[in-house]
Amino acid sequence: MSILVVGSMAFDDIETPFGKAERIVGGAGTYIAYATSYFGVETRQVAVVGGDFPKEVLADYEKRNIKIEGVQIKEDEKSFFWSGRYHTNMNSRDTLVTELNVLEHFDPIIPDSYQGADYVMLGNLTPTVQRQVIERLNDRPKLIAMDTMNFWMDIMLDELLKTISMVDVLIINDEEARQLTEEYSLVRAARKILSMGPRFLVIKKGEHGALLFEGDKVFFAPALPLEEVFDPTGAGDTFAGGFMGYIARTDDTSFDNMKRAVIYGSAMASFCVEKFGTERLVNLTAKEVRDRVFKFEQLISVDLKLSEA
Amino acid sequence: MSILVVGSMAFDDIETPFGKAERIVGGAGTYIAYATSYFGVETRQVAVVGGDFPKEVLADYEKRNIKIEGVQIKEDEKSFFWSGRYHTNMNSRDTLVTELNVLEHFDPIIPDSYQGADYVMLGNLTPTVQRQVIERLNDRPKLIAMDTMNFWMDIMLDELLKTISMVDVLIINDEEARQLTEEYSLVRAARKILSMGPRFLVIKKGEHGALLFEGDKVFFAPALPLEEVFDPTGAGDTFAGGFMGYIARTDDTSFDNMKRAVIYGSAMASFCVEKFGTERLVNLTAKEVRDRVFKFEQLISVDLKLSEA
Repeated sequence: MSILVVGSMAFDDIETPFGKAERIVGGAGTYIAYATSYFGVETRQVAVVGGDFPKEVLADYEKRNIKIEGVQIKEDEKSFFWSGRYHTNMNSRDTLVTELNVLEHFDPIIPDSYQGADYVMLGNLTPTVQRQVIERLNDRPKLIAMDTMNFWMDIMLDELLKTISMVDVLIINDEEARQLTEEYSLVRAARKILSMGPRFLVIKKGEHGALLFEGDKVFFAPALPLEEVFDPTGAGDTFAGGFMGYIARTDDTSFDNMKRAVIYGSAMASFCVEKFGTERLVNLTAKEVRDRVFKFEQLISVDLKLSEA
Repeated sequence: MSILVVGSMAFDDIETPFGKAERIVGGAGTYIAYATSYFGVETRQVAVVGGDFPKEVLADYEKRNIKIEGVQIKEDEKSFFWSGRYHTNMNSRDTLVTELNVLEHFDPIIPDSYQGADYVMLGNLTPTVQRQVIERLNDRPKLIAMDTMNFWMDIMLDELLKTISMVDVLIINDEEARQLTEEYSLVRAARKILSMGPRFLVIKKGEHGALLFEGDKVFFAPALPLEEVFDPTGAGDTFAGGFMGYIARTDDTSFDNMKRAVIYGSAMASFCVEKFGTERLVNLTAKEVRDRVFKFEQLISVDLKLSEA
């Protein structure tokens, strides 16, 4: 199976209560692709980077069956740069610097070799760019998922709503779901969002887990309770990558399988936060992923004996 | 099976974004007992009320197999009174008034007929009063659980720690667990608390569910995603009552059974918040409880197919 991923590939400066990391490789597309690559699928990366982006990262991508023909390299320009500082409880952060650089005029070219992708994951980007990607596909994929953020709700809501209406799965966090719908209750927010077009909705609640909705069905998966969250950067993107990577590997878009996909996404995200940036994701074994999912199984499994109740 | 419950029986004034309720019957002991009474167990209530406390509530108690011989009535005094106002998101509240009244000199007398109770639930009260109850029992119950709050950590931590060391299950919320241990990570907080004496720990996270710990084992149960939280007052006490009521009914203190008990506690709490005060709890059928637990089953059940992974 193949999954087309579009998203930023960038540099980040990150400051958490545990330390500081400078000019490390980040970006939604990077985290998503690292996560999908653990599911034995072919990842087809669409992105744009500057001449400053490390060639060895792209070489490492290829070893992971992440195709880079759709990664444009603007040799004379600079990669997207983001800098942020987390507060003590890690639940909120301040953005210190955002330099769009190559992303400012990003034209998401889809190479011919990427056509016919089975699945598509649209990482957080300008909604118009996300829509261009959909429009440039010759065939409708089996499932298109998208992430977004409050920023686009603030400055181009109409464009965002148009893009949302074209996808099968929307993956956003609780605050974004509330802002998008002006509903505090996530149950009500979900109902409104499902009427905007997507058949499925995933609401990420960070350390409080994630909810999956389809019609009147709802599934909840917790986040793994951790001793320490070292750096939450990219956790949401890694969740999305794990979620879609699992769906692509199993080639099954049923609600029951999506429930499993939410757990796999949560498992991948639980690794992401253990070290700075992508460090933990880059050095991960299939066995570690399996063992982590088994931890989730232990965390949530209960026999309610309802027949005896 | 029998369960001895100690806790306040009181009047509350409550203001939420949905409305106002004045002088309604509340108190930890009230909520706990209403919840336990749905599990077909004999509840033995220990409390003190003033002459102003409605006799019909006590009469209703007896119909629910809640014994009131241990409910002292101080005819010339006033019942405990609490008044609070919830903020828009319902996650925080301001206490406007606290009048201890009869609670100020509460001597928790245990009638002979209460001796030999199988289970004990110590609702939030002065830690010294909670300890007196334990010390006045002739036989050690099968399981003693206690609730507490940050207020006692602020003003009598040593007394609180002494009481905690004597119980089997501590049931507190996430902020209280953090304050008690000075650890932000709930995993670390849990490890510290389990070294203070209790064999089991339940950390309630409100709308974000609850965690159950024993040794290195951990189980997570979500709260039911609701359209509307009308009034959160008493939800934590109702959770504790449902949790202990289920354990008492099944007479099983294994970790597997406690996992089920957490779900039953969460189910009872999900009813509590649907209306003001105890209104929803008072009018609840066994079938509604069963149906609600079935909703939890649907919310959390997933077949991870780990053997195929």
